[in-house]
Amino acid sequence: MNEKQKKKPWAGRFKSELDPIVQKYTRSVHVDRRLAPYDIQGSRAHVRMLAAQGLVTSRDEEQILRALGQIEEEIESGQFPYRDELEDIHMNIEYRLQEIAGEAGGRIHTGRSRNDQVALDLKMLCLQTAIGWRAQILEIQKVLLERAQELKTSLFPGWTHLQAAQPLSWGHYLLAFGEMLGRDDRRLAFFQELHSTSPLGAGALAGSTLPLDPERSAQELGFAASFANSYDVVGDRDFLLELLQIACQLMLHLSRLAEDFLYFSSTAVNWIELPDSLCTGSSMMPQKKNLDVLELARGKTASVLGHATAVACLIKGLPTSYHRDLQQDKEHLFATIDAVIGTLEVIPLVVSGFQINQERVQNAMKQGFLMATDLAEYLVTRGTPFRVAHERVGKLVAYCLEEGLTLEQLSLEKLQELAPECGPEVREVLKLESFLRRRWHKGSSGLVSIEQQIAHWGERIGALS
Amino acid sequence: MNEKQKKKPWAGRFKSELDPIVQKYTRSVHVDRRLAPYDIQGSRAHVRMLAAQGLVTSRDEEQILRALGQIEEEIESGQFPYRDELEDIHMNIEYRLQEIAGEAGGRIHTGRSRNDQVALDLKMLCLQTAIGWRAQILEIQKVLLERAQELKTSLFPGWTHLQAAQPLSWGHYLLAFGEMLGRDDRRLAFFQELHSTSPLGAGALAGSTLPLDPERSAQELGFAASFANSYDVVGDRDFLLELLQIACQLMLHLSRLAEDFLYFSSTAVNWIELPDSLCTGSSMMPQKKNLDVLELARGKTASVLGHATAVACLIKGLPTSYHRDLQQDKEHLFATIDAVIGTLEVIPLVVSGFQINQERVQNAMKQGFLMATDLAEYLVTRGTPFRVAHERVGKLVAYCLEEGLTLEQLSLEKLQELAPECGPEVREVLKLESFLRRRWHKGSSGLVSIEQQIAHWGERIGALS
Amino acid sequence: MNEKQKKKPWAGRFKSELDPIVQKYTRSVHVDRRLAPYDIQGSRAHVRMLAAQGLVTSRDEEQILRALGQIEEEIESGQFPYRDELEDIHMNIEYRLQEIAGEAGGRIHTGRSRNDQVALDLKMLCLQTAIGWRAQILEIQKVLLERAQELKTSLFPGWTHLQAAQPLSWGHYLLAFGEMLGRDDRRLAFFQELHSTSPLGAGALAGSTLPLDPERSAQELGFAASFANSYDVVGDRDFLLELLQIACQLMLHLSRLAEDFLYFSSTAVNWIELPDSLCTGSSMMPQKKNLDVLELARGKTASVLGHATAVACLIKGLPTSYHRDLQQDKEHLFATIDAVIGTLEVIPLVVSGFQINQERVQNAMKQGFLMATDLAEYLVTRGTPFRVAHERVGKLVAYCLEEGLTLEQLSLEKLQELAPECGPEVREVLKLESFLRRRWHKGSSGLVSIEQQIAHWGERIGALS
Amino acid sequence: MNEKQKKKPWAGRFKSELDPIVQKYTRSVHVDRRLAPYDIQGSRAHVRMLAAQGLVTSRDEEQILRALGQIEEEIESGQFPYRDELEDIHMNIEYRLQEIAGEAGGRIHTGRSRNDQVALDLKMLCLQTAIGWRAQILEIQKVLLERAQELKTSLFPGWTHLQAAQPLSWGHYLLAFGEMLGRDDRRLAFFQELHSTSPLGAGALAGSTLPLDPERSAQELGFAASFANSYDVVGDRDFLLELLQIACQLMLHLSRLAEDFLYFSSTAVNWIELPDSLCTGSSMMPQKKNLDVLELARGKTASVLGHATAVACLIKGLPTSYHRDLQQDKEHLFATIDAVIGTLEVIPLVVSGFQINQERVQNAMKQGFLMATDLAEYLVTRGTPFRVAHERVGKLVAYCLEEGLTLEQLSLEKLQELAPECGPEVREVLKLESFLRRRWHKGSSGLVSIEQQIAHWGERIGALS
Repeated sequence: MNEKQKKKPWAGRFKSELDPIVQKYTRSVHVDRRLAPYDIQGSRAHVRMLAAQGLVTSRDEEQILRALGQIEEEIESGQFPYRDELEDIHMNIEYRLQEIAGEAGGRIHTGRSRNDQVALDLKMLCLQTAIGWRAQILEIQKVLLERAQELKTSLFPGWTHLQAAQPLSWGHYLLAFGEMLGRDDRRLAFFQELHSTSPLGAGALAGSTLPLDPERSAQELGFAASFANSYDVVGDRDFLLELLQIACQLMLHLSRLAEDFLYFSSTAVNWIELPDSLCTGSSMMPQKKNLDVLELARGKTASVLGHATAVACLIKGLPTSYHRDLQQDKEHLFATIDAVIGTLEVIPLVVSGFQINQERVQNAMKQGFLMATDLAEYLVTRGTPFRVAHERVGKLVAYCLEEGLTLEQLSLEKLQELAPECGPEVREVLKLESFLRRRWHKGSSGLVSIEQQIAHWGERIGALS
Repeated sequence: MNEKQKKKPWAGRFKSELDPIVQKYTRSVHVDRRLAPYDIQGSRAHVRMLAAQGLVTSRDEEQILRALGQIEEEIESGQFPYRDELEDIHMNIEYRLQEIAGEAGGRIHTGRSRNDQVALDLKMLCLQTAIGWRAQILEIQKVLLERAQELKTSLFPGWTHLQAAQPLSWGHYLLAFGEMLGRDDRRLAFFQELHSTSPLGAGALAGSTLPLDPERSAQELGFAASFANSYDVVGDRDFLLELLQIACQLMLHLSRLAEDFLYFSSTAVNWIELPDSLCTGSSMMPQKKNLDVLELARGKTASVLGHATAVACLIKGLPTSYHRDLQQDKEHLFATIDAVIGTLEVIPLVVSGFQINQERVQNAMKQGFLMATDLAEYLVTRGTPFRVAHERVGKLVAYCLEEGLTLEQLSLEKLQELAPECGPEVREVLKLESFLRRRWHKGSSGLVSIEQQIAHWGERIGALS
Repeated sequence: MNEKQKKKPWAGRFKSELDPIVQKYTRSVHVDRRLAPYDIQGSRAHVRMLAAQGLVTSRDEEQILRALGQIEEEIESGQFPYRDELEDIHMNIEYRLQEIAGEAGGRIHTGRSRNDQVALDLKMLCLQTAIGWRAQILEIQKVLLERAQELKTSLFPGWTHLQAAQPLSWGHYLLAFGEMLGRDDRRLAFFQELHSTSPLGAGALAGSTLPLDPERSAQELGFAASFANSYDVVGDRDFLLELLQIACQLMLHLSRLAEDFLYFSSTAVNWIELPDSLCTGSSMMPQKKNLDVLELARGKTASVLGHATAVACLIKGLPTSYHRDLQQDKEHLFATIDAVIGTLEVIPLVVSGFQINQERVQNAMKQGFLMATDLAEYLVTRGTPFRVAHERVGKLVAYCLEEGLTLEQLSLEKLQELAPECGPEVREVLKLESFLRRRWHKGSSGLVSIEQQIAHWGERIGALS
Repeated sequence: MNEKQKKKPWAGRFKSELDPIVQKYTRSVHVDRRLAPYDIQGSRAHVRMLAAQGLVTSRDEEQILRALGQIEEEIESGQFPYRDELEDIHMNIEYRLQEIAGEAGGRIHTGRSRNDQVALDLKMLCLQTAIGWRAQILEIQKVLLERAQELKTSLFPGWTHLQAAQPLSWGHYLLAFGEMLGRDDRRLAFFQELHSTSPLGAGALAGSTLPLDPERSAQELGFAASFANSYDVVGDRDFLLELLQIACQLMLHLSRLAEDFLYFSSTAVNWIELPDSLCTGSSMMPQKKNLDVLELARGKTASVLGHATAVACLIKGLPTSYHRDLQQDKEHLFATIDAVIGTLEVIPLVVSGFQINQERVQNAMKQGFLMATDLAEYLVTRGTPFRVAHERVGKLVAYCLEEGLTLEQLSLEKLQELAPECGPEVREVLKLESFLRRRWHKGSSGLVSIEQQIAHWGERIGALS
C-alpha cells in the first residue's frame, strides 16, 4: 500500500487501492470545501466536549485547537493543500490536522463519524443562510415601504389576466410584495426554530459507547438542543429540502415581480423605465436596452425549482440512514444559495430605481373601463341586486365599445337609459380620482388602507432593524 | 343570445356565444365541485356580513341561507344539477341560488369576486386538510410508540449504504420515524398559523367601495384575521404550494419507511413478514405474496413530488394578480390530498402488523462485524487515538475476512497481537448483547435513551390526543 | 373464504382476506378502465395465438372471442359491472370473461401475466396517442400556413427581451411555430418506430415454457416485432416517459405561443383581438374579456411538466422488473393525454381567429428604433467594421432619445455627422417598408425566404394530409 | 465613460455604467467559458463565409483566423485573460480578437448576433456530447455482452416486487440492460439527425440584410442544413431540453442497475461482491466496505432529473425569441453532461468487476418456490385451464409453507392429491436446472433465446465498433 492510499482514514480493511476512475467519480472536495468554516467550528466544539468529558487531555485539546486555527487561516488565505484523493473536505481537514498536530490530531474523530459531521456542517450552513436571507428580505421590505409611501396615491391600470381591471395604487401594489416577502420571512424564522437540533454525537447511526455530552457541543454551537434520535439524524436532510422549498417559494415571489416589471417596461407598454445602470445592450442591435437582471431572476427561479426537485427525488427511494446519494445534495444547495442571494441583491436596485412614465400610464388608464366595477357597486347602493347591476354595466360597456367611448364620456341620459337607477352623483363615481377615496375597508386598495399598511410595516421593520 | 349562454353571469358585454370547444376546455366543475362545501360555508359567512352591514335585508339573508341549505342537501344527496356550461362550481352554486331564491340570489355576489371566493374555498380546504393529516399522523405515532415499547430490546443489523454497520434496536429504529413525523406535524401546525387569513372581501383585486367588513366574515369562518392587502391575496397560492411541499416531505418520510420494509421483507432478506391481509398475489405466479401497499406508497411519493413541481412551475412566469392558469392547481392539490390520506391510512397497518423472523435476523447479526466500532471505541478508552484504533480494528476485520471468522471468534491472543491494548474485558465488549447497555448518552440507541424517547413521545401524544 | 375474496385470481396461497383499507388503496379500476379497449384487443390477439399454437381449442377460442365481444359492448354501453374488489381492469375483464365463457375463460391467461398484459395495453395506448397528436399537429400547421400566407407582408415590432428589436412579418412569426411543431411531429414519428415492439409473451419476467409465438400476436396487433428480452420488457416504461417528455416539449411550444398572444392582446399592448367566442368574462368586473384559453394552455404546460417529473421520479430508485409503484404511471399519463389533446384542439381556433389592430401596431412600429440594425449593416456595406458601425448607430439612437426623435426623422446632415459614411440612399434603408425587401438569404425574415417556407410547408402538409 | 465600460460592445447608447451588483449578477463567463472551443470553431466558419461573400477581405480573414488560433492556444494553455466585466465568453473572445487583430477584429460580428452565436455554440456542444455518450454506451454494451456470454447458464432468483418470482439467468439479466441502452443509443442517433441545422446567420431574430450564405457555414461546421426560420432558431432550446430528457432516461436505466447491484451486494443478501478497488470505507466503522459509486450513480440520476426539470420550467412562461433567462440553461446542461459522462465511466467497472457468491445464490434459489409457474404451465399442458392450474399450485405452495417444505420436496402422491393431473415427469419440471432448457420462444429467458440475443448484439456492436 503506497503513501497515497494510506491517507484514507478507512484503509485498514482494504486490500487494493481505489480505482482512479472511482476516485474521480466519488471525490467531492472541489464542491464541499464550502463547508470548511462549519467543519472547523464543529470540530472546535467537538474537541472541547471531548476534553470536558475527559476523552482527550487538555494538552491534546490545545494542540488540536491551535491546529484548527492554522487550518482556518490556510483556507482563508488560499494556502490550504486540498487533496482530491482524500475525497471530501472533512477528510482533508482531518488529515491536515494530523500533519500539524501529530497524534493529538488522531483523536479528533473520537466518538464522531462523517455521518454526524456532514449533517452538522450542512445544518449550520443552512441555518446561517436563513439568517442571511432574512436580512436581505428586510432590506427589500425597506425599499418597498419607501416607494410605497412615495407612490401611494399614484395609480396605474391594475389587471387580472393582463386585461385592464381596476385602478391600482403603486403603493398598494408594492405592499403586496411586502406581504409575500413577509410570509417568506416567517417561514425562515420557523425553519430556524424547527431545525435547531445539533446532530453532533449521533456517530454513524447509533451514537457512541463513549461518555459523550452532545448537549454541551450543541449549546456551544448555538443550537437549542442536541438530537433526540441518532438514527433519525444521520440520514435527516429535511432541513436542506425545506430550505430549498422555502427558496423556491421566495424566488417565485421575486419572479412574479420580475414578470410584472418586464411587462411594465416592455417597449409596447412602457409604463416604467429602469436606469441605464441596471440594463445591458445587444451585440447586434445598437438601440437595445434590455432588463437582463429581471430575466435572470426569473430564470434562476426555474433553476431553484429544479434544484429542489432534484433533492426531493434524491431522497425518494432511499432507505433510512446515510447513503452516498446524499452527497449530491450539496451542489443543489450551494447553487440555490447563490441564486437566491444574488437575486435578493439586485431586486432592491430595481424597486428603488424604476421611474414611472406618467404620460403613458395616464393614457392607458383611459382604456379598459377601469371604473366599471365601481359603477356596478354604485348601482347596488341604489338597491339593485349585484347580478342585475353587473349585467347593466356590461351592456353599457358593450355600447361604449361600439361607439368608441369611455364610460366617463357617456351622458347621464345614456347612463340612465341602460341603468335607470343612476343619479347625477354617478359622474363622481366614474372619476378615476375617486377610486382611492371610495374604499374604506381593511386591506382594500383605498388610501386609508394603504396608510394603515404602511404604518404596520413601518413598525415591524423598525422592530426588526 | 340563447338561454344557455344567458346563464353566464358575465354575459352582458359579449356579442357571441362561447365556442363549444372552448367551453369544454375551460370548464372545471367536474373537478372543482369538491370545493362545494367550502363555497357554501363561505357564502353563508358572506351573506351574514352583508346583512350586518346593511347591504342586504335580513329577509334576503334568510332566503339566501335557506337556499344555501337546500343546495347543500342537493349536493350531499347527489341531486344537484351540475351544468358544465356554467364553468365552475362557484357559478353553478350561484346560478342555482338564483333559481331557488330569485332576486335575493342575485345579491349574494355583492362585493365579492370569483377571485377572492376561489382563494377562500381553496384556503379553507387546505387548512382543513392540515387538521386531518395531523390527526392521521398522531395515529401513526401511537402505533410507532406501541411497537417501539414492545421491541425496544430487540436488535437487528443496522446499516449505512445497506451494508451492515452496527446493531440497532427496532425500538430506536421506529422512534426515528416518530421524529420525522413529528417534524411534519410541526410544519403543519405552523402552516395553519401562517395562513390563517381570510381572503373574503378582496374582490377581484382591489376590495370594494361598499362598506364590507372582512374581519367579521373572517372571524365567522374561524380565521385569525382578514387579509392585509387585497392585491396580494387574490393571486396568492402560497398556502397551496406550501401544503404540497409539506406533503412532499411527509411522503418522503413514509417512502423511506416503505423502502426499508420492502427490503426487510424481500425474499432474500426475509427479516420481517407482513400479514396476508396486507398483501396481494400474482396473476401468473401462484406462489407470490407481494407488498403492493408499500410500493404504492413509494409510487405515490413520486406522484406528490410531481404535483408539487407542477404547481411551482404553474406560478413561475405568472404576473401578479389572478390568471386562469391557477385553475390547474386544483387537480394537483386534490390528487395530492388523496394520495397522502390514503398512505397515512395504510402505514399504521404495516407498522402494527409486521412480525419479525427472529431466526433470520439472528443469523444476519453474525455477519458484517457489527461490533467493530464498539471495539475501536474500547481501544480509545485504553488511550489509543481513534485513528489508530480504527486502523487496528480494520486490520482485525481484514484478518477475519481472510480466515472466515467473526470478531467474537478471535482469541484474546489474536486480538492482542493486532491491538495490544486489549484486556480480557474485550470479550464482553464484542458481545452483541452489550450493545444496548453500553450506550448512555441522550439520543443514542442505548436502552436508557430509548426509554427516554418513549417517555417523551408518550407525554406528547397524550397531550395531543 | 367468502365469495368476494374468491374472485381474486391469485387467492390460492392466501390465508386471509385483503384488509378493506388495503383493498381501497390498491384498487385502480376507477383509473385504468381507460385501458379496456386495448386490453380486449390484446386478449383477442393472445387467444388467436394460443389457438394457432394448439394451446386452446378452436372451440375455446371462439367462446372467448364471443365473450370479449360482449364485454366490449358492455363497456361501450356503460353496462359493464366494474368491481373495485377485483383491483384493476385486467382482472375485471378476466373475471367477467369467466362468468360469460365458463371454463374456456379460465384459459385466456395461459402463458400471460398481468406484467406483460399491462405493458402491452399501455404501449398500445401510447402509440395510438402519438397517431392522434400528429393528426392534430397537422391541423394546426394548416392553419398556421394559411394565416402566414395571408399575413406574410404584414409587420409588427419583433422583440428580444420584450424590447423592440426589429420588424417582424406575422407570416415569418407564425412559420416559426410551424418549425417547432414540425420537430414535435418528427419526434412522435420516431417514437412510433422506436417502441414498435410487442411485450405480449414476456409473462411475469421470463417468458413461458409453453410454445407461445410472440411474433404472431405482435404482428396481429400491428407491431413491427415482438420483444427481444422478456426481463427488459416487463419493467420497461421508457415509452411512457418518452411520450410525456415529448408532450412536455410540445406543450412548451404551445405555451410560448400562448405567452405571446396574451401579451399581444393585453389591454396595454392591444395589437391583436380574439373573437368573443373564445373569451370569458368576470363575475365581478362587467367590462372584462379574458383569454382564459391561453392561460389554461400555459397552465396545462406546467401540469404536463409535473406529470413527466412524477413518472421519472417514480422510476428512479426502482429495481428492475415490475413493481407496483408503476401503477401510478397511469394517472399521470392519462392526465397528460387529456391536457395535450384539449390544448391542441383550442390552439387552431386562436390562430385562425385573431385579428390585428393595425392602428395600434403601426403606432408601436414607430417606437424602439426598429431599423437601427439595418442602418448598422448599411454602414458595413460602406466599409465600416461592424463594431464601429454598431457604436455609431448607438450614438445616433442616444441622440434621438434625448431629442425625442425617430431615426427616420433625422436629417441626412445629422446622420452624416455621427456616421459620415451615410449616403442619400440611407433614407431608403430607414424605411420600415424596405425591411422585407432587403433580406434575401434562406431562413431570414425577408419576403423571398417567407415564400420559400410557405412553399416548403405547403408541400409537406399536402404530402401528409 | 471610463475604459472599463467602453469594452462593452453595446455601450454606444448608454449614459451610465453598469451597476457592479448587476455586473456580478449578469456575468456568465465563469460558466460559459466551456463553450470557447465551439465559439472559435463557429467564428472560423463565419469569417470564411464572410470572406467568400465578399463581406470581409481575404486579408481581414487571414488576420482574424490567425488571431482565433492564438486565442485558442491561450485558452488551452490557461493564458487567456478572462474578464468578468465582459459578461460572457463570446464577448471575451471578440474583445480579445480586437486586441490582437485590431480593426479586422471589429468585423467578425458582421451579420451575426450573440443570439445565433450562443445557439450555435450550444448546439455544437450538444451534438458533440451525443457522439461521446454513444461511444461510452457502446463500451458498456461490450462489457455487458462479455459477461452475459460468461454467465448465460448461471441462475439467480429473479424477482418482481423484490419477491422471489422465477429463476433468471445472469446472462438474460445483463442483456436486458443491453436493450435499455440500445434504446438510449437510438434516441441519441435520432437526436443528432433532428437537430442537425445550423443557427448561424439568423442574427438577433430576423437574419441580415447583408448577403450572408448560411448554408456555407452550416456545411463547414458539419451540419446537414442551415436554419429554416430565423425567428424559430434564435429562441430554440429544444435540442438542449431533449438532450437532458434523453440523459434523464439513460440515467434512469443506470440507476435501476445501481439499485439492483446495491441490493445484490447488501450484507443481508450478499449474492455478489465488488472488488475493493471500487469501494470506499467509513470514517468511524472500521469494518465497512461501501458501494458509493452505485449510490452516487443513483444520486446523480436525481440531479439530472432536477436539471431537466429546471430547463423545462425555464422555458415555460417565456415568450418566443431570445430572453436572458436562457442563460441559466448552461449550468444545468454542463452539470448534466458531467454527471452522465462520469456515470458511464464507472458502470463498466462495476459490470466487469462483480463476482457471484454462488453459495449464497444457491441457498436463495431454494426459497420462494421459483418453479411454481413452470408447474402451473405444466398442468396447462395436461389440459387444465390456467386459472385452475394457478389455484392448484397456489394451494400446494400454501401447504409447503405450513409444512416448511419446498415444492421439490413434495412426494408425487402429495402433488397428485392437490393437482391430480400430475404425471411422474413433474419431478423433472420442478428441477431448477430444467428452467433454461424448457423455454424456447424468442425473447424468453431460455438458453436458445439468450444465445440469439448474444449473437444479435455481437453483430450490432461489431458493426458499430
